Amino acid sequence: MSVIKVIHGAKGFLSFEGIEGSGKSTQVKLLAGYLKGKGLTVLTTEEPGGTKISLKIRDILLSIGNHMDPLTELLLYNSSRAQHIREVIYPALTRNTVVITDRFSDSTTAYQGYARGIDLAIIKTLDDIVASDLKPFLTFLLDIDVEEGLKRNQKAQKKDRFEMETVEFHNLVRKGYLQIAREEPERVKLIDASGNAEEVHKKIIEIMEASWH
Amino acid sequence: MSVIKVIHGAKGFLSFEGIEGSGKSTQVKLLAGYLKGKGLTVLTTEEPGGTKISLKIRDILLSIGNHMDPLTELLLYNSSRAQHIREVIYPALTRNTVVITDRFSDSTTAYQGYARGIDLAIIKTLDDIVASDLKPFLTFLLDIDVEEGLKRNQKAQKKDRFEMETVEFHNLVRKGYLQIAREEPERVKLIDASGNAEEVHKKIIEIMEASWH
Repeated sequence: MSVIKVIHGAKGFLSFEGIEGSGKSTQVKLLAGYLKGKGLTVLTTEEPGGTKISLKIRDILLSIGNHMDPLTELLLYNSSRAQHIREVIYPALTRNTVVITDRFSDSTTAYQGYARGIDLAIIKTLDDIVASDLKPFLTFLLDIDVEEGLKRNQKAQKKDRFEMETVEFHNLVRKGYLQIAREEPERVKLIDASGNAEEVHKKIIEIMEASWH
Repeated sequence: MSVIKVIHGAKGFLSFEGIEGSGKSTQVKLLAGYLKGKGLTVLTTEEPGGTKISLKIRDILLSIGNHMDPLTELLLYNSSRAQHIREVIYPALTRNTVVITDRFSDSTTAYQGYARGIDLAIIKTLDDIVASDLKPFLTFLLDIDVEEGLKRNQKAQKKDRFEMETVEFHNLVRKGYLQIAREEPERVKLIDASGNAEEVHKKIIEIMEASWH
């Protein structure tokens, strides 16, 4: 199988992106299971989070009732990511572990850039400082209708500062993601996530096998 | 008196800087008392802090036992400052209140730049994004010997992640501050803080009266 031949580092960093309820965490697990089945060592992680410090930052970011300035929000996401990269992602890639992250830099571009309206040049300047040369080899953008995604989340009774945002906000996020996919089609793979989890997983495996050889 | 004639906004933002134990908080109080005595409305504040969110960020920054990457630290200070400026400092200056802050951008240049060794160009890029045009009209740099400062703090039984740093670290901070004062002598006033609080206060008032007219 082609995936076993992969030399990690460059190709071993994968991200999932998408709005709330698009099924990212399920797909991260399914892909990790598939790659482990091929004999690879796999680390799954998520943002904001992945380290003790990043989880403390996550608490500030997601708690309801904080009247947070968008710039503060942008900087906190970047703080959390700076620690996540240096404490977890770089070391894992160095040990030849495949790293699959639920959200990475594209989330910041979509949420704080396209949806909150912060100048994309500022978003990029910060990302260059924080993530510098670390780009996912592949990003799976799970695309789903906003109301459908929010409905899935309601069932799961999720509620944080972002999940309480308006439908209009989430539509801006979705549009932002679609724009990112148009600009970087080689890296960002747009996937219709409206089907069941197994169907979506199959599409992801096909793309993996085609790209990773 | 000249100070009463001051039109705030541009001239109403003052900062205190210096290493641990240099007496900043005492001098902030004395200066605030003096200016209030002249009929001015004065707000005293400090960094990291000044808002509910910034205080939560402060907790992460100062807790012992966090193995924090210097870049994470730099970004957290900037997150805290972004919120502080927009929630507290800008609104106060707009209401013609004099704002005196215990630490501001120069702390970041001295601690994360000169002492931690982060590229000063990165420090400046972030400060341009976060503080943009907001520079203190005057900055009082309270200069004191590092061991003397740490001794004062020991008496006060202060201990956080920075106060536990080595003497070498604090010497780098002090050197950084002195360099900042050399580069911006109009704004940054170097004050020998080894004397007693009243003597130091007198020097500060003299400089205030000479600059604020």
